[in-house]
Amino acid sequence: MIRVAISGAAGRMGRSLIQAACQYEGITLGAASEYPDSHLIGSDAGEVARVGALQIPLVDDLGKNKEAFDLLIDFTRPEVSMANLVLCRDQGKAMVVGTTGFTKEQRQEITRAAIEIPIVLAPNMSVGVNLCLKLLEMAASVLKDDVDIEIIEAHHRHKVDSPSGTALRMGEVVAETLGRNLDQCAIYGRQGLRSERPRESIGFSSLRAGDIVGEHTVIFAAEGERIEISHKASSRMTFALGAMRASQWVSDKPPGLYDMQDVLGLLKKVN
Amino acid sequence: MIRVAISGAAGRMGRSLIQAACQYEGITLGAASEYPDSHLIGSDAGEVARVGALQIPLVDDLGKNKEAFDLLIDFTRPEVSMANLVLCRDQGKAMVVGTTGFTKEQRQEITRAAIEIPIVLAPNMSVGVNLCLKLLEMAASVLKDDVDIEIIEAHHRHKVDSPSGTALRMGEVVAETLGRNLDQCAIYGRQGLRSERPRESIGFSSLRAGDIVGEHTVIFAAEGERIEISHKASSRMTFALGAMRASQWVSDKPPGLYDMQDVLGLLKKVN
Amino acid sequence: MIRVAISGAAGRMGRSLIQAACQYEGITLGAASEYPDSHLIGSDAGEVARVGALQIPLVDDLGKNKEAFDLLIDFTRPEVSMANLVLCRDQGKAMVVGTTGFTKEQRQEITRAAIEIPIVLAPNMSVGVNLCLKLLEMAASVLKDDVDIEIIEAHHRHKVDSPSGTALRMGEVVAETLGRNLDQCAIYGRQGLRSERPRESIGFSSLRAGDIVGEHTVIFAAEGERIEISHKASSRMTFALGAMRASQWVSDKPPGLYDMQDVLGLLKKVN
Amino acid sequence: MIRVAISGAAGRMGRSLIQAACQYEGITLGAASEYPDSHLIGSDAGEVARVGALQIPLVDDLGKNKEAFDLLIDFTRPEVSMANLVLCRDQGKAMVVGTTGFTKEQRQEITRAAIEIPIVLAPNMSVGVNLCLKLLEMAASVLKDDVDIEIIEAHHRHKVDSPSGTALRMGEVVAETLGRNLDQCAIYGRQGLRSERPRESIGFSSLRAGDIVGEHTVIFAAEGERIEISHKASSRMTFALGAMRASQWVSDKPPGLYDMQDVLGLLKKVN
Repeated sequence: MIRVAISGAAGRMGRSLIQAACQYEGITLGAASEYPDSHLIGSDAGEVARVGALQIPLVDDLGKNKEAFDLLIDFTRPEVSMANLVLCRDQGKAMVVGTTGFTKEQRQEITRAAIEIPIVLAPNMSVGVNLCLKLLEMAASVLKDDVDIEIIEAHHRHKVDSPSGTALRMGEVVAETLGRNLDQCAIYGRQGLRSERPRESIGFSSLRAGDIVGEHTVIFAAEGERIEISHKASSRMTFALGAMRASQWVSDKPPGLYDMQDVLGLLKKVN
Repeated sequence: MIRVAISGAAGRMGRSLIQAACQYEGITLGAASEYPDSHLIGSDAGEVARVGALQIPLVDDLGKNKEAFDLLIDFTRPEVSMANLVLCRDQGKAMVVGTTGFTKEQRQEITRAAIEIPIVLAPNMSVGVNLCLKLLEMAASVLKDDVDIEIIEAHHRHKVDSPSGTALRMGEVVAETLGRNLDQCAIYGRQGLRSERPRESIGFSSLRAGDIVGEHTVIFAAEGERIEISHKASSRMTFALGAMRASQWVSDKPPGLYDMQDVLGLLKKVN
Repeated sequence: MIRVAISGAAGRMGRSLIQAACQYEGITLGAASEYPDSHLIGSDAGEVARVGALQIPLVDDLGKNKEAFDLLIDFTRPEVSMANLVLCRDQGKAMVVGTTGFTKEQRQEITRAAIEIPIVLAPNMSVGVNLCLKLLEMAASVLKDDVDIEIIEAHHRHKVDSPSGTALRMGEVVAETLGRNLDQCAIYGRQGLRSERPRESIGFSSLRAGDIVGEHTVIFAAEGERIEISHKASSRMTFALGAMRASQWVSDKPPGLYDMQDVLGLLKKVN
Repeated sequence: MIRVAISGAAGRMGRSLIQAACQYEGITLGAASEYPDSHLIGSDAGEVARVGALQIPLVDDLGKNKEAFDLLIDFTRPEVSMANLVLCRDQGKAMVVGTTGFTKEQRQEITRAAIEIPIVLAPNMSVGVNLCLKLLEMAASVLKDDVDIEIIEAHHRHKVDSPSGTALRMGEVVAETLGRNLDQCAIYGRQGLRSERPRESIGFSSLRAGDIVGEHTVIFAAEGERIEISHKASSRMTFALGAMRASQWVSDKPPGLYDMQDVLGLLKKVN
């Protein structure tokens, strides 16, 4: 039985993670935290997530409960995740990180910590999204430079970063398959441009509206036809259940930086 | 029988306009022009458009053939349209203008010319698009400020201006219905933003890919539901036939600046 | 304060209705029922819906609690709704009915009961769906017989009736606007047909998959362009909150059969 | 240089095939036929297709011109294709067949003929569609029985068979990957059904509207997420150019029945 700690446990994603931890075979909740000023500090984590009392009070620092868990799950904000990274590295605990919006420096720090502990880092933990990454790789490898590629993502009105981490990851997979550098070929808005589309560019469009959980579409458009590959998430449980699958998988792995392709056993290369 | 002149006659839209003029009852082609350097100057307009010889040679300046037409149709570029505007105003001929990308100053000049001649100015002449503008007005007036509004448009890889004139017009209709100023609430890209979506903003996304003739979708998203209104053009004949309908309608109207709502007789206000 | 009774209170829609009743201003829960064999009979309705105890036990027959409510809300199955109809008619209580799948005979019985009590009958209570019905009416009245019309609906894997009541209502609105008889022009599947599409037919496609809450799209397709009007529900709260709005509206109305167009004050005719 | 004959040359697809044959490197038009009663018999094939005179008159029977071509391309109706099959088998000429709607018996006859001549049989010749078949195989192999699968196709109002051959092929690929028998699990319409969706069923929906060239979407829907893979054709040139690629590929192959997966060199199995 793997005992997981959940950071940001009283937020919407945190509560879904608690629910998923309670229902997932082989996993149990060991600890849960919220930010220090929260009025929920001390409340029972199970009651906060509406799954019944679990006798696990929310703490303001998981370091206080470090004996109670084997692995830390973090879907919060970069600064919170980086603090938890230090804790896990020092304590030799595995991590599953779904936070997005890291700076390059923060990513490098995660990579360094992964020399000492196993970390699954994935901007999107769903099985479907990760299958899509594989489909995108296959599509790009067949269609090559004969198509224009556009990536559209839509999320709820409260999402603050843009484009989504998943959209960027999709762009990276496609760019890498085609031998392009995403930093150079990404276009994030066309207003005011007055030129034809360069073939090699990869366009990103970010919509924010209503309560959309998360939708991503990649268009490959040639003369005469187009292919669209879409992923639509309808509830946070998708991500939470994927995080449990990642937790179970990583719990007996050596130190290293892993992604969901590793977790799901998808081959790195097609064709 | 209305005799129309077509500017930019050898381009893709120009050829569709010639085809439409030949098949539309009550309309006949009177003259056709191309830019001065074109090697097609002197060629037969009908042969250029593959509708059979019409005995109408392409000229480099419609002023040379001003006795041959009653009304000028222009789907070109702003600078060409502005030159034709002067010609029509001086000769007292009506105009149907589908060009997009005008500056504010150019729009003002068109408005002034419309004191002397009747002008239909529409960034998109299709019946469907103009019905959509009406549907958008109705949707906005019912949903009010309870929804987030996003506008997405997609066009072929050769389109140089962005967002499309039609997308901007859709934004204007929605903004006006809700008492907002589009200049202040339009968002053309979110990359790097790190804040929640303001309710009053209207988001625009522009895709450029393959041979997409023209697609526009407006999303109205509330908590729990969303409404999407889409228009998809599949051939230029839509616009060309709409231009003929506009030509026929405007041919007996007094001076003034008109749009397709006027041409189609759609009421200005719902509810 | 309007006291509502909720039928089928322990089902997924029933629990959403209890949640909505608790949060909607001017409405309070008066009684709640489940089918006689349910092991939840006697449980607290609030606890069943996870909104905290309300001291209202689930009963197997609302007739036993008829003093406790003013209006009955029913989103169940036709046979349950018909029994509740008799109760409300005999007791002079208003009804809000969101059940679908009634036979013609059952619909006639509802119409007869509405001579004595006010009834809101709507296959779909959401504001968005009802706005869409209005948009469809406007679109059909402008596009007339120049387009082919197709209706596509998608719902979760557990939905047993097909097409959805909302899809059929959309078809009725369009058919009525165009002067067609839906019974004669509806097509529910084309497999094995070997003929061109008749212009006047209205096609229905029903998808059942995953946890889709409810999506409806109507396509109006001409030569050269098409318009699509879509509604996508993302949670049952849409319908539950619409039911509360209908309850509040109907509570002071005279006997009669009403729909959401009445509730929302949308004019019956456009143009 | 491969000399191709085109059957049904004056139809819309036939004219696109002539255009494609004229522009495709390594291919030249050798002969072209139309049905015996056509008033175009004797007309120049190039003029019929608007590509300029080719000195190739339309004949009513390709058997009359059998010295003029090496390979026959047929996108017509089953009975026409079967007659041409006999001709090609007797003359030892290769065939590229894009016709759909064959009966089981007709398919068996094609299989028998392929013992003697090389035949590419593909209900849809586009590169994009065939890539999609590969993507569908990969998606099904990863998602297994955890998802509901629905296939939606839309075509122009003139298409007489339903579902499209491409949609059926997509269903076969998915069913085969999942070890299901499409004859047993396909559902072509749900009207009147009153039961929950069986997991193993594969739903088909066929839309016919306007001038839609051809759109196919396959939905894989789980609890919490769905993946959609779409192909949208925007012009017949897609199919015509794919037919040329198939013609070139098959011209030096031994007898056998091939499909576009063979032509494009896509591996038969992923994972």
